[in-house]
Order: sequence, then C-alpha cells, then structure tokens
Amino acid sequence: MSAHDAVEIITAKRDRGELSDSQIDWVVDAYTRGDVADEQMSALAMAILLNGMERREIARWTAAMIASGERMDFSSLSRPTADKHSTGGVGDKITLPLAPLVAACGVAVPQLSGRGLGHTGGTLDKLESIPGWRAALSNDEMMAQLESVGAVICAAGDGLAPADKKLYALRDVTGTVEAIPLIASSIMSKKIAEGTGALVLDVKVGSGAFMKDVARARELAEVMVALGKDAGVTTVALLTDMGTPLGLTAGNALEVAESVEVLAGGGPADVVELTVALAREMLTAAGRDDVDPADRLADGSAMDAWKAMVRAQDGDPDAALPTARESHVVVAPASGVLTRLDAMAVGMAAWRLGAGRARKEDPVQAGAGVVWHARPGDEVTAGEPLFTLHTDEPARFERALASLDGGWEVGDAADVVKQDLLIDRIA
Amino acid sequence: MSAHDAVEIITAKRDRGELSDSQIDWVVDAYTRGDVADEQMSALAMAILLNGMERREIARWTAAMIASGERMDFSSLSRPTADKHSTGGVGDKITLPLAPLVAACGVAVPQLSGRGLGHTGGTLDKLESIPGWRAALSNDEMMAQLESVGAVICAAGDGLAPADKKLYALRDVTGTVEAIPLIASSIMSKKIAEGTGALVLDVKVGSGAFMKDVARARELAEVMVALGKDAGVTTVALLTDMGTPLGLTAGNALEVAESVEVLAGGGPADVVELTVALAREMLTAAGRDDVDPADRLADGSAMDAWKAMVRAQDGDPDAALPTARESHVVVAPASGVLTRLDAMAVGMAAWRLGAGRARKEDPVQAGAGVVWHARPGDEVTAGEPLFTLHTDEPARFERALASLDGGWEVGDAADVVKQDLLIDRIA
Repeated sequence: MSAHDAVEIITAKRDRGELSDSQIDWVVDAYTRGDVADEQMSALAMAILLNGMERREIARWTAAMIASGERMDFSSLSRPTADKHSTGGVGDKITLPLAPLVAACGVAVPQLSGRGLGHTGGTLDKLESIPGWRAALSNDEMMAQLESVGAVICAAGDGLAPADKKLYALRDVTGTVEAIPLIASSIMSKKIAEGTGALVLDVKVGSGAFMKDVARARELAEVMVALGKDAGVTTVALLTDMGTPLGLTAGNALEVAESVEVLAGGGPADVVELTVALAREMLTAAGRDDVDPADRLADGSAMDAWKAMVRAQDGDPDAALPTARESHVVVAPASGVLTRLDAMAVGMAAWRLGAGRARKEDPVQAGAGVVWHARPGDEVTAGEPLFTLHTDEPARFERALASLDGGWEVGDAADVVKQDLLIDRIA
Repeated sequence: MSAHDAVEIITAKRDRGELSDSQIDWVVDAYTRGDVADEQMSALAMAILLNGMERREIARWTAAMIASGERMDFSSLSRPTADKHSTGGVGDKITLPLAPLVAACGVAVPQLSGRGLGHTGGTLDKLESIPGWRAALSNDEMMAQLESVGAVICAAGDGLAPADKKLYALRDVTGTVEAIPLIASSIMSKKIAEGTGALVLDVKVGSGAFMKDVARARELAEVMVALGKDAGVTTVALLTDMGTPLGLTAGNALEVAESVEVLAGGGPADVVELTVALAREMLTAAGRDDVDPADRLADGSAMDAWKAMVRAQDGDPDAALPTARESHVVVAPASGVLTRLDAMAVGMAAWRLGAGRARKEDPVQAGAGVVWHARPGDEVTAGEPLFTLHTDEPARFERALASLDGGWEVGDAADVVKQDLLIDRIA
C-alpha cells in the first residue's frame, strides 16, 4: 500500500478530483486505525457530500469498508439466504413480519439491524419492547438460529465493517449523513460483509425519508444495486412512498403489536401489501419464486416462524407488550375525509413522545408513540378520535402536538393527496 | 445568546444557506470553549470553503473571533499606528526593512507576526536568526517599545483571537486553508484585535502565493478592506506579484542580510520599490503623508530604527548572521537572459533546504536557503553561478534541486516573462 497523506486526499476531493483506488484504500484503512483524524475525515465527508463521487470511487470505498473487518459466510446453510434493507421511514415495521414470513417460505433471513436515531425508528428498539428479547448474538448463535428457525434479527457485531461504524457515528454529528456515496457504501458494505446471497432494498421517498424526491431516491437505489451486483449479491430495489407513514402506528411496542396483527392475517392493508411485495422480491432473488408468501401469512406458518424467532432470542411472544402510562387523544375537528397525513410530522411527534432518541446514548420508551385512526382517503367524524398519543411523560405532549400540527388535513374526498405505495423497481 | 446546535449550523451552510448572526456568534464561541468539536468545525469549514459566505456573514464571523479574546489599545501612544500584513510569498522579507522605516517617519508599527509553514517564510523565523533576538514580548513591553523605538515585530500573545488560533491549526490539517471567508476573517480578526489604527495589506498573486490568480486575490483584498473599514481601521490593499520571488534571497538569515542592505541604502530594486510603496501607503493611512520614506532610507534614520528595534528585543544588530555549513552552486547552462524564475519552485527549494518547516513543531535552519544571482530580464553567462543553495544537511540538496528544476529558463531577451510588481490598489 502506498503512503498517502490525509490533506492531499481531502484537497483532491475538495477540488472536484477523482480519488484513486490507492487513495481510497489508504484513507479508509488509516481512518479505521486512527491515523487519519476525525476532523480530517469529516472534512473529506463534507467534500464528498458536496462534490460527489464517481461509481468507481463508491465501489472502491465500499470494498475498503468491507476489508476493514470480517466477512460472514452462510454458504454452509441448507437453504438460500436473502435480506432486506430499508433506508428508514416512519411506521416502517416491515422487517418484523417480513423476516419470519420469508423464513416460512424456505429462505433464510440473516438480518443485522440497527437502532433508531432521530425521527425514524430502529428495528432493534422495536423488538426490545418484547419482554426478554435480546439483540446481541454471537456469530455461532446466529448461524444456529438461521438453520433452526430460518430468521434472525440481531445487532451487527463489532467485527463487521468497523470503518463504517466509526464513519457513521462521525457523519451523524457533522451534518454529512445525506451524501449518496456515503449512504450507499455504508449500507452496502454491511450487507455485503454480512454474507447474504440476495438483497432487496426498500428505498423510501418523501417527507419522512432521507430522500425527499424520486430522482435522488432512484440515484441512491441505482448506486446500491450496482454495488450489490458487483459484489456477487443478487440485488433489487423498490422505491416506495414515505410521504405518508406506514400502517397506523409509530412507536416501538405499538409497531410490534401491528406487526403481529399482520402475521395473524390482519393488519393495515399498506403494511400487508409492502410486506408481501418485499417477500416476493426476496424469494425471487433467492431463487424460490415457486412459493407465494400470501399463502404463508394465511396458513399461520409465518406467525409460527415469528414466535420461534422471538423465543430463540429469549423473548416471550405471548407476553403482554408494555404500554405508556399516559395518553392524549386528538379528535377530528370536522366530519369529512382525511386528505393528507405527513410522515415527517408523525415521525417527529413519535420521537418527541419518547419513541426515538436524540443521541445514541439516550434510552427509548417502549410504549411511547402515535396511533392514527385514519389514513388518507378514510372518512372521519367530527369529535371522534383521529390520533392517540402515548408517552410515560405527559410533559412531552405539548411539543409532540406542535409537531403534528399542520401535518394533516380533513376536507373533501376530491382533495385527497394519495401516492401509490410502490413507485418503482430497480434491478 | 440563543442556544444552537452544531449540526443545524453545518447543514444550513452545507445546503447553501446564510448563517444568522446568532448562529455565527454561537458556533465560534462554542468552538473556542470546546463545545463544538474539531470534527464539526472542520465539516463547517469545508462547507464554507465550497459554498462561500456573504459579506455580512464574514463580518460577523470576524467580529466573533475578535470577541473570543482580548483587544489591544494603542490610543495612549504619542504617535499614530499603522501595520502591514502580507498574505505570504517567497523571499518576502519586506516587513523587516518596512517596520523601522515607517517608525523613522513618525508612525508606530505594532506588528504581530507568525512563523512560517510550508514554502512561505515566517517573519519571526527570519528575525530569530539574529543572535539574541526574542519574539515573545509582554503587552507592557510591546507598548514601551512602541513609545521608545516606534516599531515592534513580535509573536502574537495567546490572548488575541484564540478562536482563530484554534481554527487556523484545524484548517491546516483538514484541507480548508484556501477559503476566502476564512482567510480574510483570520487575518483581519488578529489585525483588528491588535488595535492598529491603519492597516496596509499586501495581497500576493501568482505561483508562490495562496492566490494564484488576480480575480481571487482582488476578491480577498476587497473583503479584507471592507472588514477593516467596518471595524474603524483605515485599510488599503496592494495586489503585488508573487509569480517571481522577491529580491535575490529566500531563507531566514539570507533575508535578514538582504533587508539590512536595503536599510543601508542598497539592496535589490524590487525590494526597495515594494518597501517604499508600502511605507507610503502606511504613512498616508496614518495621516502622515508629509514625510517621504525614501528620504529616511537615504539619511540612515531607518537603519537607526532597525538597530534600536533589534536591540530592544535583546538582539545584536552588529553580530555576524549564521551561515549554513554546506553550499551548492547551479551555473547557467548557456549565455543569454534569465527569462523566467518561478516563485513556487524557489520557495519549495528553500523549504526543502531547511529554511521552512513541514509541521508546526519542526525547527528551521537559520542559514538555509536559496540565493539567485539573476532576476528575469538579467543577462547570464554560461558557466557562471545562477543559484547558490545553502543548507546544514547536504542530503537535502537533491530534493531542493528537483524543486528548482523547471522553475527557471535561460533564453532570449524577447522571451522574458515579466509582470509589474504593483498590480492593483484597493481602498
């Protein structure tokens, strides 16, 4: 490896240059080892955010992050593997019903998940509201559970893409999260290192997503699909709407309960639609398009897989979920139709109620969150509940209500703002 | 002061927003106190470099840096004050003859100077080659010397614009030096806090300067002149050529010797021209345009002021200057005219010979440097010395010679590349 210099690499990108393979390998490795300082990497990250990277640079950056740690290998499993990654949205609990559903269809799901930060929830936070459930598994435990149950949702170990772990924490405090090259390489380095055979990406678009417009979401999806394919992982992306929040709940235990409804054959139509669509993509990508996931929801085998998955990680799937101590109801101000419900407004309200965290070290409240009793297009009646807010700390209601304010409207059916849930597919 | 958040401010500038007064006050103060981390400030610095700042933002940023420390006050002196700042060039020893010359004309010069980093020399490094001379003075010593001698060149104390001190060190390692708003506010915060009544800026343009082209140099000059005026300091800027190095020497003791030649009434014509031009500007800005500095050079009073200034700081102006242990001569390959001499090539050669430092903590060699025996337009004779290189460590010759290579040419008089020394004046 040739010797480079951090300032040389920062100034090259600052001046719109293309970084060489050797520069990228050096800076990612030196940053992981601590030879490139945080203040140097954050300046480079800002230059990358503002000046961009070529596809070749992103691919090399991703490879360098993978090379910073261990790679897992599921090739000894008796079934194919497929994973899903969502870029994050409000009420996005899809991983919870999806992983056991796909497992019930004969494809193993090795899902390494994260915790939430800001207005989007984290899958591990949601599952931790189940009494007894634990997120930390050893690689051996993960492998054994994939063989026995077919689905694992757990925390990524420290050995996987440590460069990304360090860089992600840095980006979070330096305003450099929203760079497509850095988002794509962060996601794909973990997913490729994780060793899944197939990967389906759910790239969210809209007010509640990182990507506010379709063009940028499509660009991110294309970059990630190319990175996956280059690394030998069958990769497909769906662009899905996040202007409106998913389902009827945002909050940890609230979303677990909604997921269990879906596994029981009920649940909100949009959650079922997206769960089944993503399951079909995962099965197809893993070479098992002979199985229809809708059947496995209907026959209860997805629910069986869910219970087995929760139990394998010491959770009690039959225990009562925690509920918040306080609640506050917002009623419809008039009769009519809910014409608009903004994902960001709902996400911020749930976050302020205690469902999310402002800093990594903050705790989350298991029972906190928002339930909305109507979706855009649904009729509402004056004086009837439109939202129920839940929290352990009533002092939080005021700011949560302020977040919701202006995020919804009741009017005529003709004014309904509705976006198709599935926007595009990139393969 | 309202409460802000580093990420809010970074993302605002990242997204091409204009920072509010309150955001600027907060971030500069919080960075100085350590509440905004280095990695956050470096991301902000890169965003400022790439997205720019409005004049209002630069003025407020400068004011916030001044407010981070103490301000000096020379209003009790019996004479007016004027200072000069150069943005840095190769062979730029002008401060050395200029400060005593202006003092000899009845205007006090309170010059707080720095050490060199990279290919441009530092005024303090040059003066430290004089046996006994010390750079560190207390505020009281500085005031007493200004009253008795009329000129001080010393190191800035820690109390002056500490925000700038911290930020400059950060910019140096994060590729964020070359931002006009940050250069302008760094220079002007120190000069305004220093308390000079008038200020003349020597903004260098060309290969050996930070600003390689006239348009950017003019922009920097205009920003700085406006900042000075807003702060009540009479400020003028000269744009001067730094495509060719100044005088005939680059290196610490070598430049002191050349400066003494100028003070004795001799010296290279360009050094004399620029010294006198800057002195006239300083005198005019301080309201003393009745005095002609050329007379004070001729009558020996500038030399007297030099000796008094050096002695007041414990230096011996009559002691022999240190010389390097080894020298190497480059002869003219053919007879003709020196058509081109590149400032950057000469600066890099001097730096590699040991006259400058790569890191702040490195020592410099007092005797190291480059002497060129001709300037563009001068005739040269095949086999006669063109350059003499000086260093204590002969192993340094090879890289220094490589730096010089391609930086000069001997040819026909018709091919001489000559740029006027004085390019523009901005007031």
